Amino acid sequence: MIRAGIIGSTGYAGAELARLLVQHPETEVVWCGSRSYTGERYSSQYQNFNGLLDLDCRDDDLEKLSEEADVIFTATPQGYLASVINEDILSRAKIIDLSADFRLKDVSVYEKWYKLEHKAPQFLPEAVYGLCEINREQIRNTRLLANPGCYTTCSILSLYPLVKEGLIDPMSIIIDAKSGTSGAGRGAKVANLFCEVNESMKAYGVANHRHTPEIEEQLSYACGKDVVLSFTPHLVPMMRGILVTAYASLVKDVSWSEVEQVYKKYYEKEYFIRLLREGCTAETRWVEGSNFMDIGWKTDPRTGRIIVMGTIDNLVKGAAGQAVQNMNLMFGLPEQMGLMQVPMFP
Amino acid sequence: MIRAGIIGSTGYAGAELARLLVQHPETEVVWCGSRSYTGERYSSQYQNFNGLLDLDCRDDDLEKLSEEADVIFTATPQGYLASVINEDILSRAKIIDLSADFRLKDVSVYEKWYKLEHKAPQFLPEAVYGLCEINREQIRNTRLLANPGCYTTCSILSLYPLVKEGLIDPMSIIIDAKSGTSGAGRGAKVANLFCEVNESMKAYGVANHRHTPEIEEQLSYACGKDVVLSFTPHLVPMMRGILVTAYASLVKDVSWSEVEQVYKKYYEKEYFIRLLREGCTAETRWVEGSNFMDIGWKTDPRTGRIIVMGTIDNLVKGAAGQAVQNMNLMFGLPEQMGLMQVPMFP
Amino acid sequence: MIRAGIIGSTGYAGAELARLLVQHPETEVVWCGSRSYTGERYSSQYQNFNGLLDLDCRDDDLEKLSEEADVIFTATPQGYLASVINEDILSRAKIIDLSADFRLKDVSVYEKWYKLEHKAPQFLPEAVYGLCEINREQIRNTRLLANPGCYTTCSILSLYPLVKEGLIDPMSIIIDAKSGTSGAGRGAKVANLFCEVNESMKAYGVANHRHTPEIEEQLSYACGKDVVLSFTPHLVPMMRGILVTAYASLVKDVSWSEVEQVYKKYYEKEYFIRLLREGCTAETRWVEGSNFMDIGWKTDPRTGRIIVMGTIDNLVKGAAGQAVQNMNLMFGLPEQMGLMQVPMFP
Amino acid sequence: MIRAGIIGSTGYAGAELARLLVQHPETEVVWCGSRSYTGERYSSQYQNFNGLLDLDCRDDDLEKLSEEADVIFTATPQGYLASVINEDILSRAKIIDLSADFRLKDVSVYEKWYKLEHKAPQFLPEAVYGLCEINREQIRNTRLLANPGCYTTCSILSLYPLVKEGLIDPMSIIIDAKSGTSGAGRGAKVANLFCEVNESMKAYGVANHRHTPEIEEQLSYACGKDVVLSFTPHLVPMMRGILVTAYASLVKDVSWSEVEQVYKKYYEKEYFIRLLREGCTAETRWVEGSNFMDIGWKTDPRTGRIIVMGTIDNLVKGAAGQAVQNMNLMFGLPEQMGLMQVPMFP
Repeated sequence: MIRAGIIGSTGYAGAELARLLVQHPETEVVWCGSRSYTGERYSSQYQNFNGLLDLDCRDDDLEKLSEEADVIFTATPQGYLASVINEDILSRAKIIDLSADFRLKDVSVYEKWYKLEHKAPQFLPEAVYGLCEINREQIRNTRLLANPGCYTTCSILSLYPLVKEGLIDPMSIIIDAKSGTSGAGRGAKVANLFCEVNESMKAYGVANHRHTPEIEEQLSYACGKDVVLSFTPHLVPMMRGILVTAYASLVKDVSWSEVEQVYKKYYEKEYFIRLLREGCTAETRWVEGSNFMDIGWKTDPRTGRIIVMGTIDNLVKGAAGQAVQNMNLMFGLPEQMGLMQVPMFP
Repeated sequence: MIRAGIIGSTGYAGAELARLLVQHPETEVVWCGSRSYTGERYSSQYQNFNGLLDLDCRDDDLEKLSEEADVIFTATPQGYLASVINEDILSRAKIIDLSADFRLKDVSVYEKWYKLEHKAPQFLPEAVYGLCEINREQIRNTRLLANPGCYTTCSILSLYPLVKEGLIDPMSIIIDAKSGTSGAGRGAKVANLFCEVNESMKAYGVANHRHTPEIEEQLSYACGKDVVLSFTPHLVPMMRGILVTAYASLVKDVSWSEVEQVYKKYYEKEYFIRLLREGCTAETRWVEGSNFMDIGWKTDPRTGRIIVMGTIDNLVKGAAGQAVQNMNLMFGLPEQMGLMQVPMFP
Repeated sequence: MIRAGIIGSTGYAGAELARLLVQHPETEVVWCGSRSYTGERYSSQYQNFNGLLDLDCRDDDLEKLSEEADVIFTATPQGYLASVINEDILSRAKIIDLSADFRLKDVSVYEKWYKLEHKAPQFLPEAVYGLCEINREQIRNTRLLANPGCYTTCSILSLYPLVKEGLIDPMSIIIDAKSGTSGAGRGAKVANLFCEVNESMKAYGVANHRHTPEIEEQLSYACGKDVVLSFTPHLVPMMRGILVTAYASLVKDVSWSEVEQVYKKYYEKEYFIRLLREGCTAETRWVEGSNFMDIGWKTDPRTGRIIVMGTIDNLVKGAAGQAVQNMNLMFGLPEQMGLMQVPMFP
Repeated sequence: MIRAGIIGSTGYAGAELARLLVQHPETEVVWCGSRSYTGERYSSQYQNFNGLLDLDCRDDDLEKLSEEADVIFTATPQGYLASVINEDILSRAKIIDLSADFRLKDVSVYEKWYKLEHKAPQFLPEAVYGLCEINREQIRNTRLLANPGCYTTCSILSLYPLVKEGLIDPMSIIIDAKSGTSGAGRGAKVANLFCEVNESMKAYGVANHRHTPEIEEQLSYACGKDVVLSFTPHLVPMMRGILVTAYASLVKDVSWSEVEQVYKKYYEKEYFIRLLREGCTAETRWVEGSNFMDIGWKTDPRTGRIIVMGTIDNLVKGAAGQAVQNMNLMFGLPEQMGLMQVPMFP
């Protein structure tokens, strides 16, 4: 059994990690970290775990945790892991970081977008960006994994084959993304109250959301040149789910089926990526609670553009599920282990 | 592997059966029945099953189905099963009926509340009422199982120990129940449109809802005398979840802990029933997607009443989950097999 | 023009007061009080008022406000008004208090249920309980009005005629109330976040909610003897609306129409109370955004009980609307002025 | 008093017309047309009108209605009005059509996108496109008004000044629009059930939605050349509200304030259009229930694009409110009459 610890276990991503790890046949949760609820029963905050996870919350202590666990998940604010990580810890336990600390290879880009000094740039070279479908082999061999952001996962996987194969003009990409509210976290903020979120929608972080450089960096790797794109996230009155609607100019006239061939080249054998049939629309409800990503697209001869629609559950494929998928790879387990949940509808 | 067929598989309860059976390690879904979508791909209606359940919907044919399956789930309107069941079918396959056809032992009560002639009363004596926590032994040995209603399951299990032990006056029981909208089914009705249900709530079936006699019959068995009670269901703008708030006059002055002893006597070893700690409140979110039932209570010396609050996911413990729990018992499998999902939150 | 000031204007009830007063032909909002947002533009917190109410929020200063306004609405936490009220203030401006400070005539009951010392009991005798349909004449002549609670308004008006006419046993009353989340206020609490409230429901304040004594006191006045009842509020995932489902034992066998006569005796001429036709159900959506209250009922010969269902918009008839209705009475204006909004659906 | 008739009064747009007209000081609703509910009390379908609008629904009879009314609102499916309109009717009553029949000047474009033969092209020349802020003077003098679509209103008004002033490349426009579910109408369809819509989102009509040519035609008028653009509507789990997020390439480097000057040139005196301050975001909740439109924008030097965000209540400014605004103009009333509702929040 793999002993797993979660720092930030009482946030939504942390709790989703707990849900998946409790159900995973090869892991045992040994540490629920929570600064806010140290000493409290984990199941007093998350009563769904009543009788299923009987631990008290512990304060953050990565040193000690690394002695008790084989793998550490950090579902923490930006900057936390970089400020405490060291060689000792990494020599004892593998780390899967759900924050942005080790996602961007270029420190200056990190510091510019996050407005934080990076405290541990020496670990950036060995950190692996954990988009399993793209970086599978490097993931198997790392001890420090940067788990991609939710918007990023959905955006990159939606566009990767098109960019990689040169089917679209990368400078024409516009990503209009919509997210459920769990992505905003469990902090006690007026803006996230039921009555503030319900029956409304809005864009936020327009032209300056921090997931932008992460998407640009990965797509730049794919096409071998710099990519600058528009990314606009929106808040929608629902709990789980991200829908990415991406627009780009096609560099040549292609049919729906020709695009399908491009997607199949990269994703046909990917269990967690489902390509939709022609005419089908990606809807977040069909992936809810699961690690699946659905992708559909439409070519538009009138405008010469392609519209790609991708959906994930932001807490699963966009956070905890992908983290477990990465863990499986890092520990030599079957990639789908513990992640076979059928999406729950309604 | 147990071969399972579902009649009414494109309703919400039917789809939930599919979800649980696809994940169950000892069953295989071999038949998705659907009058409305015969010939269509099951996953074209329920795209969450894309890549997970690749069957076409078939018309209702219980005779043929009974030759191809070991167990048949009927998630059908009242009257259907009674109109087609026969000895041949039952000799070939076990039936778990999610309709009301075989829940009430008294045909006249059935015909009065459902305003239907019962077409197969000869099978009533052998049918077993499938409330696992109460009728476990009979369930193991039956071939015709009447799966309890959603409101009924939550109401009976909330009150059973109190009635059985004579702690409350059974004639004083008032059950105020609230349900998510999936309980109203997937029929195309104006009343169930998003804009009609959202941001509103209402009582319905006041003083004449069909689950009333089912609750009364089972509680009468528990206390050995006729029970007549008030039952009021409400529609609430959410998808899954039933909350029962039940009121009854205590026959003697008891403390919270004394009541706990009574509940523990019946439920302490029940995996799927979780008794809440003093001061904790039952909330539907903590059982969503799972087969758990949470029960809490408060004694009120001012009024001499007890208020009991019970929660289930109406599609799981209130329908498909309990049906699978019954199937496990009927086929000699561990009762919890395939039902260990951690409740999903948020 | 009546100059109106609002203390607590950035809470939900305060903002609803602003909405109604801005639309009222005879009032002008001259003061938006807000401790949290002092100095900020009111419309920066409530952007719906962009271009419609251009005031900056001011700190609480009842003395000064009483010099600038003719009427003061206090939508403040319990204890605030009692701690600052004095004769000078009252001599200059009429006060409509949306808190509980002057609702209960018996100080000891207040102090027991609210766990607060009452700082101004000397004003209790002159305070009038502002349930317009019942206390209209006293309201016209008061300068200190205690605006009823939301649950209370809905509960009392639902049951008043039945209690007054002796049709039900007052000791048998059970009130199961359900409320939208705006009733929980705009405080930044985890429990009220979208992801915590949505897709769930729960009871709270079971057997000890503070609106209980207020309901009991008013119904006791109606029947001339002490009333002790069960009151259970529930939180439902919607924004506005209260539904009260009340149960009581009938003291004699009556038909639906006989009950209607009793309701008509008290409410036939009440503009804001709508008695539903037989078979119609009270639904919160039909009163949303308006000052109406809908009442329906069902007699149940099986149990000898009556079930009454009443609905209001908790922010309007349950708070700001009733406050304006009271203001109209106190200033000699037509009672419906500024309150003729058609309920908004969907 | 203007006598108003509504054909299609039991759809959501029709009911919103009823709400606004009942509150309008100069109109009286004299006819509630409804094929589905002919003979039924209007308030039995829309119980919010209990006591406020006591008419029975009548069958569609435009001839007769034109004799009883001064203005006729048709909130009907495409093709209906074109199939029944004639000179006699128009000579007796003014018509405000909420369908698409008279919005597009080019019959062939209508027939291509709507797949319908246009039955009354002879009236197209005199029909006026009722976007008040743009076509005010023509509206005053017409007897046949084509009320714009909901997506169209929000899209055109968001972009009109930028296109008119040549600030953006019209061929670069991408409109990503999101709508609440009331836009899908009140038809009894599985796709619009609460459990199908809630907790999900999706694009639909990708690259072929019928509002596309309407937007293109109006923006073409503005810039004097053909516009071809991408328009993608999305369904979001809420009732009211449209959010348009529009992207376009700037033809020159401009600041936020320079863009503001352009918007002010066209909208500064428009009561119903509110330009947001820099840094403020358009959110649908701030216009709910009102005829306001909020517009905000952000320039993005990284990509050379501008992102414009516009919000309306689809049933008010996107349908019934704009229709009443048009009626006011057509009858010489103050444009804001009956439309001064403060947006309702929460």
